[in-house]
Amino acid sequence: MEATYEALRKHGYADLTIQAIADEFAKSKSLLYYHYDSKDGLLVDFLGYAIDGFAVREPVDPAIPPDDRLDALFDDFLAESLDGDRREFFVAIFELRSQAPSHVAYRDQFGRADRLITASITEILCAGIERGLFYDVDTDRTAELLYSMLTGGLLRRLTTSEPRSVPTTRRAIDRFVRSELLSDRDN
Amino acid sequence: MEATYEALRKHGYADLTIQAIADEFAKSKSLLYYHYDSKDGLLVDFLGYAIDGFAVREPVDPAIPPDDRLDALFDDFLAESLDGDRREFFVAIFELRSQAPSHVAYRDQFGRADRLITASITEILCAGIERGLFYDVDTDRTAELLYSMLTGGLLRRLTTSEPRSVPTTRRAIDRFVRSELLSDRDN
Repeated sequence: MEATYEALRKHGYADLTIQAIADEFAKSKSLLYYHYDSKDGLLVDFLGYAIDGFAVREPVDPAIPPDDRLDALFDDFLAESLDGDRREFFVAIFELRSQAPSHVAYRDQFGRADRLITASITEILCAGIERGLFYDVDTDRTAELLYSMLTGGLLRRLTTSEPRSVPTTRRAIDRFVRSELLSDRDN
Repeated sequence: MEATYEALRKHGYADLTIQAIADEFAKSKSLLYYHYDSKDGLLVDFLGYAIDGFAVREPVDPAIPPDDRLDALFDDFLAESLDGDRREFFVAIFELRSQAPSHVAYRDQFGRADRLITASITEILCAGIERGLFYDVDTDRTAELLYSMLTGGLLRRLTTSEPRSVPTTRRAIDRFVRSELLSDRDN
C-alpha cells in the first residue's frame, strides 16, 4: 500500500502503471501481479486501506474543546498554505476521486470516506452542544454543509489559479461557525 | 466545439482521442489536426468557449427577484434529481477539472470560470441587499462560501454512492440562506 501511494504520488493517476507500483515494491513483484490485474483494482484497495486507517485512528483527545477540534479540521482541508507533501497527497486522492463518476468501486469507497468524515464532524457538533458551547443545531445537516464547504473549497484550491478563494472561503466558514454555531456570541 | 463536447460525453476523458473528436466533426478532419496536436489543447479551447458562452449569456431578467435567482442557481448545481444529459455534462466538466492539478492551462480556465460564477452570485447578493430583501452581508465572502458549498455538494454527488448527501446539503444551504441572508425572518 505504501508502494502504491509512492507510485501514485510520483507518476500521477494517468501515467501510473502496475509496473511503476511494482518498482516501488521491495517484496516479490510477482506477488503483486498475482493479486492484481489492473491498476484500478489495486488503487481501490489502496483507498480502502487509507480509509480504514482514518476510521481506526486513535480517538481524538476528549480534553480538546469541540471548537478547537472543528478548527483543526478546517485547517486540515483549508490551511492558509499547503506544503508540497500535503498538496501531493490531496492531488493523489483527488485524481482517484475523479475516476469515481465512471467506476462504481471508487464511488463506494468515497461514499464510505464521506460518511466517516461527516460522522466525525457530527460527533464534534454533538460534543459541543452537550457542553453548551454550540447552539442546539441539526447536527446531521450542519455536518453535511460544513463538509460540502470544505470539499468545495479544497476542490477549488487544487484546480484553479485563484489564490484568493481559499482564505476567503476559510474566513467565511469561520464567520458561519461564529454566527450559526457558537452560542457565546462574544467569541 | 460541439464535436468536442459530443466526443467527450460519449467517450469520457480517459478514452478520448483526437480521432474520436474528428469522427464527430462534419467538416474537414485535416483542419482539426492542423490546429491541434493534442486532445488537451483542444479541450482547453473547448472549455474557454464554454466559459465565454456563460459570460456573454443574456443578462438575467431583472424582474426575477434575487432570492428566486439564487434558488435557480442552487437548482442548477444541486437539483433533487439529475437527468442523464445533465449528469453527462457535469461529469464531462468534472473530468476536465480533474486534469487541472497537473495542467496550468486547465487551472487558468477553471479559475476564470469560478471568478465568473462567484461574480454572478455577488451581483445577485448586491441586488437583494439593494432591494432590502437580504441583510447587508459581506457579498464577496458570502459568494465564495455559497459557491464552495455548491461545488462541494456537486463533487460529492458525482463521486459517491451516497444519495442522502445531496438533499441534506441542499436543505442546509436553504437554511443558511434563511438565517444569514433573508432579512424577512418570517420567510
